[in-house]
Amino acid sequence: MFEIIERDLAGRIGILETKHGKIETPAIAPVINPAKNILPPSSIIGIGFPLLMTNAYIIKRHYGDLATELGVHKILGVEKPVMTDSGAYQFMVYGKIEVTPEEILKFEKAIESDIGVILDLPTPPGISREEALRRVEETLKRAEKAVSEKPSEMLLVGPVQGGIYIDLVEYSARKLSTLDFDVYAVGGFTQLMEQYTFTSMVDAVVAAKRHLPPNKPLHLFGGGNPVMLPLAVALGVDLFDSASYALYAKDLRYMTSHGVLRFERLRELPCECPVCSKYTVEDLRDIPIEELERKIALHNLYVLSKEIKTIKQAIHEGWLWELLEEKASRQPALMDALLRLKKYLDYLERHHPITRQPVRGLNFASITSLWRPEIYRHLKRLYERYTPPENKTLLLLPETREKPYTRFGPIAYIYEAVKEMNYPYHLVVYSPIFGIVPIELSEVYPLSQYNASKLLANDPEKIAFENIKRYLKTFSNYYNGIFLVIDQELIKFPDEEISELKSEISLKVLSYSISSIRSKEQGIEFFEKISGLNVD
Amino acid sequence: MFEIIERDLAGRIGILETKHGKIETPAIAPVINPAKNILPPSSIIGIGFPLLMTNAYIIKRHYGDLATELGVHKILGVEKPVMTDSGAYQFMVYGKIEVTPEEILKFEKAIESDIGVILDLPTPPGISREEALRRVEETLKRAEKAVSEKPSEMLLVGPVQGGIYIDLVEYSARKLSTLDFDVYAVGGFTQLMEQYTFTSMVDAVVAAKRHLPPNKPLHLFGGGNPVMLPLAVALGVDLFDSASYALYAKDLRYMTSHGVLRFERLRELPCECPVCSKYTVEDLRDIPIEELERKIALHNLYVLSKEIKTIKQAIHEGWLWELLEEKASRQPALMDALLRLKKYLDYLERHHPITRQPVRGLNFASITSLWRPEIYRHLKRLYERYTPPENKTLLLLPETREKPYTRFGPIAYIYEAVKEMNYPYHLVVYSPIFGIVPIELSEVYPLSQYNASKLLANDPEKIAFENIKRYLKTFSNYYNGIFLVIDQELIKFPDEEISELKSEISLKVLSYSISSIRSKEQGIEFFEKISGLNVD
Repeated sequence: MFEIIERDLAGRIGILETKHGKIETPAIAPVINPAKNILPPSSIIGIGFPLLMTNAYIIKRHYGDLATELGVHKILGVEKPVMTDSGAYQFMVYGKIEVTPEEILKFEKAIESDIGVILDLPTPPGISREEALRRVEETLKRAEKAVSEKPSEMLLVGPVQGGIYIDLVEYSARKLSTLDFDVYAVGGFTQLMEQYTFTSMVDAVVAAKRHLPPNKPLHLFGGGNPVMLPLAVALGVDLFDSASYALYAKDLRYMTSHGVLRFERLRELPCECPVCSKYTVEDLRDIPIEELERKIALHNLYVLSKEIKTIKQAIHEGWLWELLEEKASRQPALMDALLRLKKYLDYLERHHPITRQPVRGLNFASITSLWRPEIYRHLKRLYERYTPPENKTLLLLPETREKPYTRFGPIAYIYEAVKEMNYPYHLVVYSPIFGIVPIELSEVYPLSQYNASKLLANDPEKIAFENIKRYLKTFSNYYNGIFLVIDQELIKFPDEEISELKSEISLKVLSYSISSIRSKEQGIEFFEKISGLNVD
Repeated sequence: MFEIIERDLAGRIGILETKHGKIETPAIAPVINPAKNILPPSSIIGIGFPLLMTNAYIIKRHYGDLATELGVHKILGVEKPVMTDSGAYQFMVYGKIEVTPEEILKFEKAIESDIGVILDLPTPPGISREEALRRVEETLKRAEKAVSEKPSEMLLVGPVQGGIYIDLVEYSARKLSTLDFDVYAVGGFTQLMEQYTFTSMVDAVVAAKRHLPPNKPLHLFGGGNPVMLPLAVALGVDLFDSASYALYAKDLRYMTSHGVLRFERLRELPCECPVCSKYTVEDLRDIPIEELERKIALHNLYVLSKEIKTIKQAIHEGWLWELLEEKASRQPALMDALLRLKKYLDYLERHHPITRQPVRGLNFASITSLWRPEIYRHLKRLYERYTPPENKTLLLLPETREKPYTRFGPIAYIYEAVKEMNYPYHLVVYSPIFGIVPIELSEVYPLSQYNASKLLANDPEKIAFENIKRYLKTFSNYYNGIFLVIDQELIKFPDEEISELKSEISLKVLSYSISSIRSKEQGIEFFEKISGLNVD
């Protein structure tokens, strides 16, 4: 029913089958007001959205019996997949609704919804833990009942509740995972996300994902700000619904991939969508307000569509992390969310692919690049699986620009010298990015396939130092001697840190201009210098 | 002739008048091969580019006398501004050309070019300093001659040479600035920029700008990669020419605002331009290669056009720095260039507007946000112009979330207490972002109008500490006592730094949960605690 075809971080591209056709995920379902929508649903489908979201409760109240006669697809005038919400949102806003969970589920089936949500009890921020628990339990009861009467035609959505109470989210997800839903969902963060607070959503999605079946799609209710889409997808969200295109348009807010702008502050239309390439700002200022709202809504949909395509392309090529960094770099709230990911590196690493074809180099440009799962994975594996050769002398060398070290640049010449002269040395490179790289691993992806900014290479003492210490603590008993080579041109090493290292571990320190080694012969000279030291 | 209408950083929006109409800058002139272009020039104008660039030397060789009869606009089939290059590029590539500086200038006038470049001698990387100087001198000689015979109709471009030899760039710019060119230009960095090395361009543009007349437009030859446009504009570049749309298309490279992608690796067309919203990747895979190249070239032009519009909107609203950060966040070479800007903060600050209407808050999300000109300016003015009140006791308080401090949050209550009780205290806030903010300045833009990520607020000790020290060194003689209040919940302060401060300056340190002050009365209690300390 749901097939995962590509992965990056904990994000994936998948295919979800419904009775009105396949949905490629990640996907956004634009929310359609069945009473009166700002744009005809068919024109939204025309942009390329593979499904729509509408509200069964509103349809029921608005169309009554006519709805079951027509079906939701005729009402919306589309023959593509339609997802229906159940009135839970209305319950949340108005405190009550006039329908039972059984009635609305029956109605969703009757109007031939492709994906139906059960009538859950949302847990928005602001409610007490007790109330949240009560709603979780009630939702679980309804979930059990709904699954026991599961329709064969309609995919059923099981909403995880708990909100900001992460233990309740985990409990809810664990319980729901035992029930055979086709799609799971997380909700309750719309208000927080509208206020540009994303960390609770991050916590809740990871908590839910850790307990839900990994091969089922996850829906995030109400995440429509384009800036947060890559983050949610990276965590494992597959489906979104959003009324943002219309709500923002009503407020004359114009989406861009750089953030949401106010129409009255536009001097340009920084977009090439079919709306914006046809008009200038001045043209749009002159049209009636309702028409302007419609045009902005249409533009906003094009931006959302483009954002989803960009995310898919990023997953395909493996640059979803870089897209996250791009979004976070100018949005403090997203940067805070990216900082939060540090807590979940283990989760991200477990889902992140080992390699991909064709191989693509990684870009380490920001401070946040240092917690990419590739780095976390390398160090994890090093300390879990690696064993150094025995009875050799450890030679710790600073990283050079040329990579892989085994083949290019000064370290390659040193390595050749070792091989030719049978020197009893084991070369291990310390790096501001990957920490510690034993020479024999240096060709393993992505240890040599990356570009790093000087921002990271300039202030690496701490990292290099920590990693050297950890490596020595773990493996020093394999070696019969330790040399730490320092080249201040390559990696700056404060004197205090050298003395601290010396006080903890027995090692010899050698300052040497590694960068000046430009031949195997100079590599051999380097070892002559070392063996001089050895005798001392 | 050139009117500057809006500014951000050293970038500006301007209007350049030519005989074929006005050009709003920043603008890119797509380069047209007059012999055979990948797309008809008129269709390029149709996208919205306000001028085209073509090559007078190639036109001369290709069309001969016919060219002077037709004129360059008839040859290209457009009635918009056209800029003509002179053959300097061909000289650079082939080592010689068959035209004199006088002939080509006469020819450019004859074909009615709107903006003509003199036949300069480019100084690409790789040539010696001596050779670069020789070319600078020869270019200056030709420049002088060209200006002395300056055409009344055609705008004349004076190219600054010197390349990577920054002192020569300065010399060249200083000399050229005495000659009455309509447009100046910097060149010689195309190869470096193609290799994603931007720091030399940064150095050269700043060096040139510092010596050129500020009210004349500056052209950058051959900067067509969309990732570097915001950087160049931020430095003060107004005009670009670029063949990149066509060169990239020939190589099936597909521009996006996130970087240049390879067509064969696309699974999506992450774009909504008129080309990409009409086709799918699969559609494009099926068309003949020449047709595909044309479609990609057209798409690339839409992306370039959108990038320029985004830059203009950023200048208009004052988020050009944030756009730079966004581009740099995932491109190590651009991050290196942004690091380079640290050298030029004085230059950027001098050009950056003091305020703008409507006021827009600043986003400090990345490490690089800490060298925004607003911060540099605040500290510069503080130490150049500020005088603290005399005979008061200095009370250094950690920054709180609520701003302005005078009106909201704990500091406002402390401030009220001071005013009500006539306490002889001067409140100065230490901040991880702006360093030091005397309370009476806290409402000055943008000291309270910003959002900062925890990334910056989490690790601020060093910054806070340095700024406190500098403030005390400069102003401690104004005060009759100094209290440093520390709230580890707000800003972490390592013990070593406290003792270092104490060893240098006579002050009292008080740990106090500032964040818990929630009324004026609690503010008064706080002062009672302090006066207790005073007695000790």
